[in-house]
Amino acid sequence: MNTQRITPRSAAGFELRAGQLLTVVDPEGVQVADLLAFSRDDTREVISNGRTFDYEETIRLTTGNRLWSNRSNVLMTIEADNVGCHDFLLTPCSEHTFRHFYPDKPVHRGCFGNLAEALAPWSITPDAIPVAFNCFMNVPLNGEGKVSVLPPISKAGDSISLRAEKDLIVGLTACSAYDSNGGSFKPIDYRIDG
Amino acid sequence: MNTQRITPRSAAGFELRAGQLLTVVDPEGVQVADLLAFSRDDTREVISNGRTFDYEETIRLTTGNRLWSNRSNVLMTIEADNVGCHDFLLTPCSEHTFRHFYPDKPVHRGCFGNLAEALAPWSITPDAIPVAFNCFMNVPLNGEGKVSVLPPISKAGDSISLRAEKDLIVGLTACSAYDSNGGSFKPIDYRIDG
Repeated sequence: MNTQRITPRSAAGFELRAGQLLTVVDPEGVQVADLLAFSRDDTREVISNGRTFDYEETIRLTTGNRLWSNRSNVLMTIEADNVGCHDFLLTPCSEHTFRHFYPDKPVHRGCFGNLAEALAPWSITPDAIPVAFNCFMNVPLNGEGKVSVLPPISKAGDSISLRAEKDLIVGLTACSAYDSNGGSFKPIDYRIDG
Repeated sequence: MNTQRITPRSAAGFELRAGQLLTVVDPEGVQVADLLAFSRDDTREVISNGRTFDYEETIRLTTGNRLWSNRSNVLMTIEADNVGCHDFLLTPCSEHTFRHFYPDKPVHRGCFGNLAEALAPWSITPDAIPVAFNCFMNVPLNGEGKVSVLPPISKAGDSISLRAEKDLIVGLTACSAYDSNGGSFKPIDYRIDG
C-alpha cells in the first residue's frame, strides 16, 4: 500500500485485518496522531488505557508493549518505535477542551470531532470514543503526578508501527490542538503492510 | 442516612441527587473501594479518567479536584479527603485480571463483575464500565512510568467525601483483589448526606 496522508486537523478511518502492520509516520516532526482501535466484529470492544496500564504494568508504552481492550484482549502490538514517547492518559482534544484551554482562540471540533466523523461509517458514536493512544504525544508527569503537555520529541520521518492482533477498525488523526504539537498544525502519514 | 456496609468482595449500586455528599469510609484500614458514577439522565455519560487528567492537570486527585465525564461535565467534586492517595489509572479487577495476576488462586469475578451486577438495574452493561476512581488505592509510578500496586495507606476510619454535581447512579465496591489491599478482604462503609 502506498503511504496515505492525513491533512492537518483531520482524521482517517480504515480497517486493518489481523496480522497487518500499521505504520504511523510524523512526516515533518513535532506532531501528534491520536489512534483508536475497535474490534471489527463488535465495536463495543475498544482499546482501554486502564486495561493496558494494568497488564503492561507501565504507562510508558513502546516496542513490545501491547494495547489491550476493555474485554482484556490484545488488539495491537507495538513492533517498532523510534520515538519512544507517546501518551495514553489524555482524551482527544474537542470543542470542550478548546473552550477550556484556549479561550482566546477559535473553537475547533478537534481530534474528538474528527474521529467521530471518521468512525461514523461503522456506527461508532461520539460517546463510544475513549482515551486514544496518542502517538508521539509528550506528556511528562512530575513527582506529584502533575500533567504537562510539551511539544513532541519526534523528528521528521520518525514512526511507530503496530501489528493488528484482531480485525480492527482504526481512527487516526493529525492533531488539532496547539499545545500537543508546539502550536503548528501538520499532517500525519500512514501505511499498511501485510 | 445511616452508614451502609458493603461486605467484603461485593458492591452496591445507588442513586445520588445533585448536591448530595457521598462519604466512603475504610472502616478497618488498608482497603480499596472502586467508584463509578453515571449521569442518571443518560447513562452513556460516565466518569472519564482521561477527561479528568486533562482538566485537573494531574493524575493525583484529592480535595478540590473534580471527576469529569466523557462529555466534559463535572459529575463529582472531592470535598474532603484525609488519605490523599487514590488511583484513576487502573481498571476494576475482573475474572481476566485474576487469571493474569493470580494464576494459582481461585478465580473471582472481582470488582468488575460486582459492579456489573450492581449497575444492571439501570441497564448499564459490562462493556459500559470504564476505569473506576479507586478510592484509597495506592498505585505509585517510578520515573520510567512503571506501575506498582501497593497496600493502601488508609487507616481504620479514614474517608473521602465527594459531592454529586448532577443526579447520578453510583457503583461502589469493597475490592476483591489481593494486591490492592495487602491480601485481606475487608468491607467498605458509605453514607449519603444532604
